[in-house]
Amino acid sequence: MADSTAKQGAPALGVAMVGYSFMGAAHSQAWSVAPRFFDLPLHPRMLVVAGRQAGPVEAAARRLGWEGSTTDWRSLLERDDVDLVDVCTPGDTHAEIAVAALEAGKHVLCEKPLANSVAEAQVMVDAAEKAAVAGVRATVGFTYRRVPAIALARQLVAEGRVGTVRHVRAQYLQDWIADEQAPMSWRLEKEKAGSGALGDIGAHVVDLAQHVTGELLTGVSGLLRTFVEERPLPGAGGGALGGTAGEGTGVVTVDDAAVFSGRLSGGGLATFEATRFAWGRKNAIRLEINGSKGSLAFDFEDMNVLHYYDATEDARVAGFRRIYVTEPEHPYVGAWWPAGHGLGYEHGFVHQVVDLVGALAAQEDPAPTFADGLQVQKVLAAVERSSAEGCAWQQL
Amino acid sequence: MADSTAKQGAPALGVAMVGYSFMGAAHSQAWSVAPRFFDLPLHPRMLVVAGRQAGPVEAAARRLGWEGSTTDWRSLLERDDVDLVDVCTPGDTHAEIAVAALEAGKHVLCEKPLANSVAEAQVMVDAAEKAAVAGVRATVGFTYRRVPAIALARQLVAEGRVGTVRHVRAQYLQDWIADEQAPMSWRLEKEKAGSGALGDIGAHVVDLAQHVTGELLTGVSGLLRTFVEERPLPGAGGGALGGTAGEGTGVVTVDDAAVFSGRLSGGGLATFEATRFAWGRKNAIRLEINGSKGSLAFDFEDMNVLHYYDATEDARVAGFRRIYVTEPEHPYVGAWWPAGHGLGYEHGFVHQVVDLVGALAAQEDPAPTFADGLQVQKVLAAVERSSAEGCAWQQL
Amino acid sequence: MADSTAKQGAPALGVAMVGYSFMGAAHSQAWSVAPRFFDLPLHPRMLVVAGRQAGPVEAAARRLGWEGSTTDWRSLLERDDVDLVDVCTPGDTHAEIAVAALEAGKHVLCEKPLANSVAEAQVMVDAAEKAAVAGVRATVGFTYRRVPAIALARQLVAEGRVGTVRHVRAQYLQDWIADEQAPMSWRLEKEKAGSGALGDIGAHVVDLAQHVTGELLTGVSGLLRTFVEERPLPGAGGGALGGTAGEGTGVVTVDDAAVFSGRLSGGGLATFEATRFAWGRKNAIRLEINGSKGSLAFDFEDMNVLHYYDATEDARVAGFRRIYVTEPEHPYVGAWWPAGHGLGYEHGFVHQVVDLVGALAAQEDPAPTFADGLQVQKVLAAVERSSAEGCAWQQL
Amino acid sequence: MADSTAKQGAPALGVAMVGYSFMGAAHSQAWSVAPRFFDLPLHPRMLVVAGRQAGPVEAAARRLGWEGSTTDWRSLLERDDVDLVDVCTPGDTHAEIAVAALEAGKHVLCEKPLANSVAEAQVMVDAAEKAAVAGVRATVGFTYRRVPAIALARQLVAEGRVGTVRHVRAQYLQDWIADEQAPMSWRLEKEKAGSGALGDIGAHVVDLAQHVTGELLTGVSGLLRTFVEERPLPGAGGGALGGTAGEGTGVVTVDDAAVFSGRLSGGGLATFEATRFAWGRKNAIRLEINGSKGSLAFDFEDMNVLHYYDATEDARVAGFRRIYVTEPEHPYVGAWWPAGHGLGYEHGFVHQVVDLVGALAAQEDPAPTFADGLQVQKVLAAVERSSAEGCAWQQL
Repeated sequence: MADSTAKQGAPALGVAMVGYSFMGAAHSQAWSVAPRFFDLPLHPRMLVVAGRQAGPVEAAARRLGWEGSTTDWRSLLERDDVDLVDVCTPGDTHAEIAVAALEAGKHVLCEKPLANSVAEAQVMVDAAEKAAVAGVRATVGFTYRRVPAIALARQLVAEGRVGTVRHVRAQYLQDWIADEQAPMSWRLEKEKAGSGALGDIGAHVVDLAQHVTGELLTGVSGLLRTFVEERPLPGAGGGALGGTAGEGTGVVTVDDAAVFSGRLSGGGLATFEATRFAWGRKNAIRLEINGSKGSLAFDFEDMNVLHYYDATEDARVAGFRRIYVTEPEHPYVGAWWPAGHGLGYEHGFVHQVVDLVGALAAQEDPAPTFADGLQVQKVLAAVERSSAEGCAWQQL
Repeated sequence: MADSTAKQGAPALGVAMVGYSFMGAAHSQAWSVAPRFFDLPLHPRMLVVAGRQAGPVEAAARRLGWEGSTTDWRSLLERDDVDLVDVCTPGDTHAEIAVAALEAGKHVLCEKPLANSVAEAQVMVDAAEKAAVAGVRATVGFTYRRVPAIALARQLVAEGRVGTVRHVRAQYLQDWIADEQAPMSWRLEKEKAGSGALGDIGAHVVDLAQHVTGELLTGVSGLLRTFVEERPLPGAGGGALGGTAGEGTGVVTVDDAAVFSGRLSGGGLATFEATRFAWGRKNAIRLEINGSKGSLAFDFEDMNVLHYYDATEDARVAGFRRIYVTEPEHPYVGAWWPAGHGLGYEHGFVHQVVDLVGALAAQEDPAPTFADGLQVQKVLAAVERSSAEGCAWQQL
Repeated sequence: MADSTAKQGAPALGVAMVGYSFMGAAHSQAWSVAPRFFDLPLHPRMLVVAGRQAGPVEAAARRLGWEGSTTDWRSLLERDDVDLVDVCTPGDTHAEIAVAALEAGKHVLCEKPLANSVAEAQVMVDAAEKAAVAGVRATVGFTYRRVPAIALARQLVAEGRVGTVRHVRAQYLQDWIADEQAPMSWRLEKEKAGSGALGDIGAHVVDLAQHVTGELLTGVSGLLRTFVEERPLPGAGGGALGGTAGEGTGVVTVDDAAVFSGRLSGGGLATFEATRFAWGRKNAIRLEINGSKGSLAFDFEDMNVLHYYDATEDARVAGFRRIYVTEPEHPYVGAWWPAGHGLGYEHGFVHQVVDLVGALAAQEDPAPTFADGLQVQKVLAAVERSSAEGCAWQQL
Repeated sequence: MADSTAKQGAPALGVAMVGYSFMGAAHSQAWSVAPRFFDLPLHPRMLVVAGRQAGPVEAAARRLGWEGSTTDWRSLLERDDVDLVDVCTPGDTHAEIAVAALEAGKHVLCEKPLANSVAEAQVMVDAAEKAAVAGVRATVGFTYRRVPAIALARQLVAEGRVGTVRHVRAQYLQDWIADEQAPMSWRLEKEKAGSGALGDIGAHVVDLAQHVTGELLTGVSGLLRTFVEERPLPGAGGGALGGTAGEGTGVVTVDDAAVFSGRLSGGGLATFEATRFAWGRKNAIRLEINGSKGSLAFDFEDMNVLHYYDATEDARVAGFRRIYVTEPEHPYVGAWWPAGHGLGYEHGFVHQVVDLVGALAAQEDPAPTFADGLQVQKVLAAVERSSAEGCAWQQL
């Protein structure tokens, strides 16, 4: 892809990425595909990817389409051709890398959650504010905002179509450790993962609830729960129902599930649930909004659809409309295929690149900012405090 | 219908009803229809209905199929041919009527909620226990238990098909006062209605969650909210969006919505929501259960369907099954129509009669008992307390 | 119920019924329940039911709420108090009973299909026309017209909301003989049943397609098929997959499935399918209409819902609306329960009674007439001819 | 991408493409993305794209990721580094280009329909057979076969899970010319497009029905219809409902809709419908199969889902399973994202590249062959003949 930059005449945007597993693959796909379908004001050059082990990072670079690779992420910061650092590592390393990159004058796209703690996130926000003075931008990757149906939902709320928001119902349901014999993983250790379902997937629905409504949570009360406190070590046990536990086990130190409620700045009530124990729900990000004039409903397992109820209609023909969000009039969609040809998971990452590159070219702050990421972090921390204090209300 | 009793040879069960509006109509339909489709061990005679005004109660008796009517509900208790009193009045009168009937040796079917307060409900339970010594039975009408899909859900849980329950997600969503100009009603006054969405519809989902799982809530934390605190008096304002407020307004003294979370006796997490402000949701009683071996999902707006996920199946062909609960093998269904011919709302009331008459004939306690109703009442009271105390956890 | 007639003051309508199995039970329920929920201008008295065997017909009368019973259906015609004869017998007896009743001056409600052949149906139409001179009315029971969602669909088409009809897609899918070992039945013998899936269930979707669009089929081409030509005699074989064939078998002489296409009088294309071999579809009456301005979709397995697409809307928010047909504004619904409390299969029969009694009181022809039934019969006959003649087009 | 070939060590596959609009974009995306996610035995080099106008084809090459461009498609055949020609032009040019490419010893991937007539398609098949002797391969792009849910459906049928196929219900519903004022297009002219809905989208469902069942149609009867025979010329009229017709109009010479029925080689009945007049259906490719042991249902508007009914299950818990086809166990899916993260339209094209490259490396014929494409063409021609001959049955 890099070659085509010059041909297209748009100024280049040199990109370096740190980390190359699940999120790294999704981001690489986005950097590569975005310029094929969208007219970008800057042309991304996929310069280099950094990782810890030379062999794997080289292979990843080849497979994912990066020009080169390195085992020293700090070396990226010294390269003049690198304009932006894309941080796709686990959460406990975000602060160090992002702050260093900002201090080196590189724009930063950082995967969510911003950090594993509010303190770390605050440091990142401070660094971002300092860097902003010099026109260096920072954004955090709450990618689900870029799913067209979600973007449409936000538009409809902003246009006043649902009126005053009374209820938000936000759930993120998965089932990947519903099996009690599923093995231990770093994601189940508090030191590495920061938190469990709350931080990993709950963060997404907190962001979506606030983003779509355009409101903030003003307080929360919540309850965390770890259903399975000990698990077989990887290799030691099975991964399917009926798998047999091996000799060794590890202790789960994060939450398996979180339920919490909150008030929105506009006076509405919001409920949240994040769990990895909902058998049969694979990636069910569900968002329902009820307002004074209408309602919206979304489920990521049918991601090209938004349901919309318009209460101003004649009751005789009113009903939730299944809007198949694949029309040229819908956000992002016109750049892709003819109407009716749905998009998939990774398109959200492409749209993130489109929005980010557009903001950089326009010298505007890309949304969401590190401050937005910190605010989500504070919500999650308040939920943890509430759970520890018998669900006591935590004002934000 | 009464004549046919003798012909069928089954002993008669003399029934008297108090109240004749929405619930009275549903109960009348049930008493009348049940013997046409089910072989009942006792044959209900619809003897008399009591109400406050002579004209309307007479008309109701004719329309609903009762042999006679009266304006003095106490007179029912003196009649030897009355075996059972069916209490369909508003909640603030339940205790007085039910206790008097039990003391007079009449079986009692009392609509939910059992009472408007825990104290009243406790008095009723005491009366029921005293009456039980003499073989007099009392039951409270949580009718949704008798929807075939719900009854099937309970069977599947009891058979162990979902394993240990980890999550319950229970919601009762309506929209009948989502319009801010919808007029005042006695249901919005605390003195008459006891509580708002919490007691009126939240009670149902608390009962269903416990009934289907076979577990009890051991503690709760909750949040109540009144979105619209003043409403036009009836006649003074409109009832549709855009309706204009009249001169007079009344103050809403109950909750418009309630959200709460709790722990189940088996260790699972349960979340609840009851609201009348969910535009487009008319009678959406939704129940989802995730267990260690599978999941269930139900929505009353598609009441003949139960969704079931069996996690022990090969992942390649596993998926939520849409069980269309209209087969002869399904609870209650065989007595009705051939497979595929769905039932409606009122059939739950017919099944309630079937179960109740069966229990009376077998000299067993019909479920749910007054004690069950009191337990639900205690849960609701704990939610109110929690809301008043900053969501503080309330052990049950 | 009969007693209440006098009390309500409305003139009585004396009803006699012939036949008392599946359809007899549904009709009885309807005659009994209609006056409880609707203000009828005539009050039905359920006088007598006729059947072939004294014991069973007596038991049925008691169970279904009829005042008396008889084994001689002709005796009904001699009773002065009988105003209407409700014919619920198998199709091969319809002509004889209905013609005799009309000649005796009794109104007739005849179950569908009107007859087993066009010739018989023609005789019935002639008799109905003769009787009409004296104010005697005849109607055929295409009950699915009275499902509220179907009635709403017809209204929306009539109001021009879908514009010119281009496509009708009508299917009636069941699975009750999909199992090859399901035993023989009279329904699978041409002499008794007239035809198979085509006449039994295909008749319904032909009527619905024409009724909802307000158009007639002007020609058809079709294809019939018998998948399983021999079946175990009842008692001889099993009824479930894996059932073992007994000693005796019978020959299936009707179609198992029918597919056909036609043109509508307004220029649209219609496709039809009727089968009892669609595993998992229990009573899936599906109707889809695409017009120049919008579309409609219905499936009886979700019978309280109509889907409506309004093509005049902004593409950004257009989508099929799931109209939950339980509002007071919807046809028939206001008489029942509050919004959101769905109806079931038998309510269509109640609505049939309501419409029929209304027409009789207004001295108008109840719809559909025998002539309408004959027209459906002619369509079915044309499909059979087409199938026999290599799908050749049959003009109607 | 081309560079990475060498690095990865897999032999290169030099690809040239002719045409670069909708299909060209989809194919380019596929050639580019496939190697990022799948381990391909040959590494595609996107060498050159050919088109008629120099400027646009150059721009397309840059945007879509091709190394070069040309206005002379015949020049591709002279290049030694071109191993495969990907034909993405309109149907009337397929034969000329594909035959020339095969004769030049290039593998050919040709978009569907194979050609605009059976005669042309036959010529292509002959050329393919001749080329096959030298190990040169030809395949036609029925891409929907590669949607994971469709691929899974085929597997389940092949495994015997639905038993003997009795019914296929195949529909392809769109609405892009449902508006009578939508302007003329080359797709509505018989000379250029060959046929209308029948060939453009009907071809897909014929292929899918045969592919998934593993059977062939043995005869058909059908009916074509042109609803709107004259349309405003482009620019002259509007494209939305209510658009005003301009001065000039053009005559539509293809079918707007086609309905047809057929018999499958295994004895089942199949019905087909292809239309661009189904308001609200954007790309609704629907496939339902009912067999002696189970059923399947698919709708492309929910493309990551396959519904499966297993009739061997206990009726009490049987139901259509919503299989969310995003598990590693599902065809193609494991190479992409974690479970639950759905794919989109273009992934089918990626899978087509994967299968094609795999077959080439294995020196096997890629499916579907040109002969398969010809057979579909013959079915479509038979439908046209049947429609012209009063729906008369056409044996195949």
